[in-house]
Amino acid sequence: MSSAVTPMAVTMGDASGVGPEIVLRRFLQGGLERDVVVYGDAAVLRHGCELLGIQVQVHAIDRAADAVAGHLNVVDLGLLQASDHTPGVLSGKAGAAARDYVGRATRDALAGEVAGIVTMPMNKEATQLSDPGFVGHTEYVAALCGAPKVTMMLTNGPLAVTHVSTHCSLREAIERVTTPRVLDVVRLTNATLSRFLERPRIAVCGLNPHAGEHGLFGDEDSSHIAPAIDQAVSEGIDASGPHPADTVFFQAVHRHRYDAIVCMYHDQGHGPMKLLAFDTGVNVTLGLPIIRTSVDHGTAFDIAWKGEAFTDSLDHALAYAWKLAGK
Amino acid sequence: MSSAVTPMAVTMGDASGVGPEIVLRRFLQGGLERDVVVYGDAAVLRHGCELLGIQVQVHAIDRAADAVAGHLNVVDLGLLQASDHTPGVLSGKAGAAARDYVGRATRDALAGEVAGIVTMPMNKEATQLSDPGFVGHTEYVAALCGAPKVTMMLTNGPLAVTHVSTHCSLREAIERVTTPRVLDVVRLTNATLSRFLERPRIAVCGLNPHAGEHGLFGDEDSSHIAPAIDQAVSEGIDASGPHPADTVFFQAVHRHRYDAIVCMYHDQGHGPMKLLAFDTGVNVTLGLPIIRTSVDHGTAFDIAWKGEAFTDSLDHALAYAWKLAGK
Repeated sequence: MSSAVTPMAVTMGDASGVGPEIVLRRFLQGGLERDVVVYGDAAVLRHGCELLGIQVQVHAIDRAADAVAGHLNVVDLGLLQASDHTPGVLSGKAGAAARDYVGRATRDALAGEVAGIVTMPMNKEATQLSDPGFVGHTEYVAALCGAPKVTMMLTNGPLAVTHVSTHCSLREAIERVTTPRVLDVVRLTNATLSRFLERPRIAVCGLNPHAGEHGLFGDEDSSHIAPAIDQAVSEGIDASGPHPADTVFFQAVHRHRYDAIVCMYHDQGHGPMKLLAFDTGVNVTLGLPIIRTSVDHGTAFDIAWKGEAFTDSLDHALAYAWKLAGK
Repeated sequence: MSSAVTPMAVTMGDASGVGPEIVLRRFLQGGLERDVVVYGDAAVLRHGCELLGIQVQVHAIDRAADAVAGHLNVVDLGLLQASDHTPGVLSGKAGAAARDYVGRATRDALAGEVAGIVTMPMNKEATQLSDPGFVGHTEYVAALCGAPKVTMMLTNGPLAVTHVSTHCSLREAIERVTTPRVLDVVRLTNATLSRFLERPRIAVCGLNPHAGEHGLFGDEDSSHIAPAIDQAVSEGIDASGPHPADTVFFQAVHRHRYDAIVCMYHDQGHGPMKLLAFDTGVNVTLGLPIIRTSVDHGTAFDIAWKGEAFTDSLDHALAYAWKLAGK
């Protein structure tokens, strides 16, 4: 690499979906030719250029350190050929390859060869065709890192939203609202934002409407959430709450009162955030020993390889990864 | 009334809060001098003019039919005097009076003397000082109307959001997700929007993340919600779902795919809607024999009678009431 900066890895995602297409189209707009290394299949990216009618210098390399400026550098895993590339169609081979790009990039990040990983979307159903036990992108990275306590953070840039639970039933989510778990997520949120903010202002949501309205609607807010906030405050964290979940977003977004909101379950955070930042949101995994951000959209098979997918999401995910890296 | 139109009632709300102040300031901007009758205390409104340093012709009347054009017509209940008016301070007397304005307006609406009621905020704690069994504004109106099945709709104008449950714990909300209750709310939503839309497009949310992702995260979506949607469709209602609650708002707001979203619990609907329309939202009670809309904010004692409260909310609530009345 001509630059002394350790590059950021971008995994190209499922070849049938919008991931590699976004990487190619975004490269043409400039800015990815330095400090970014794609993990994927050069054959798919070259075939993709033909499909899109564009010209990109795809430079296949064996390791991130071999990247050269001015090209689209690709750590080429050689798993898919042009004949394996089935745009818009679910493919077991593409699904398995997408997982392996992430595996290699994660190992390289753990080894310090890349500054972190930015992941383009995988298709869980496609990956499960060859790996039925595959739970999800984040769980896969967490397992490779040996990280037991991770949580999903969504951000639109100025506001970060973290979750005490995500992919479980709402009944199960209520059970997961325990003081130790809430405290873990508040601490992870604080540690992450402290990478670039002096003292992050963290609002913690209640579980029940109006945060329980003084015990009128459930007692989890006072019994489980409030003690976690008290403990966090005693550790010097600027945490407050439990706040009613329906007004705290307005306070954060329009009144700029908080840098982060800790949510108790998936839709409490995702509902408002997807409305705020459907195409620009960044997904960050907290609790890993490496930096990992992800675009906040799926493989979108229905529009893949048609030149329609937004490319902004990659910019936001990359920018946030660099922000976490202190660059 | 000089106009032949049956007027709309506006209850002035708790005298200590922002309700009567908003009515006065909004009247000065023009437009409330016709077709609107305030239910409240003329003495408080006159005292309020002094506090605000404004001049308004407060015309006290005994019944809506006595209203005259050009004045702020007030069906004067004579419950509070200027000396009872304690701006910004919780008052049992003001709380009891606020309830009685609503009682009188509801009875007049049932009798056809007003076209419907638009309510300014009450303070539940203030009302409970003299009426400990007082549950809430909506429950009070529903009881007076003898309406057993009501639901809360929030709207920002183009989008309406209704709720299968609102003020109960999240645990209890899950129990209330039954096929008959979901069907009731879909039917109420359809009937209400059919007053001004030919065939309202109604999206029904799932309960669990990703609407359960095919049973992976809970079975309420397929077992309880889907059958209600099937039944609604068989009745000719344009209902669809269960949709993931975190993306359906984007589809409705930014892609204009739905006119209404049926939510399973308070924060599922309130979270996104308060972010969209914190100061402009309108609250509509469905399932009543009368029209009732409400501003979507509280008494805001902290800024009451300082001339700071937004007056737009009253406009929106009034406009929606007239829309429902077919005007």
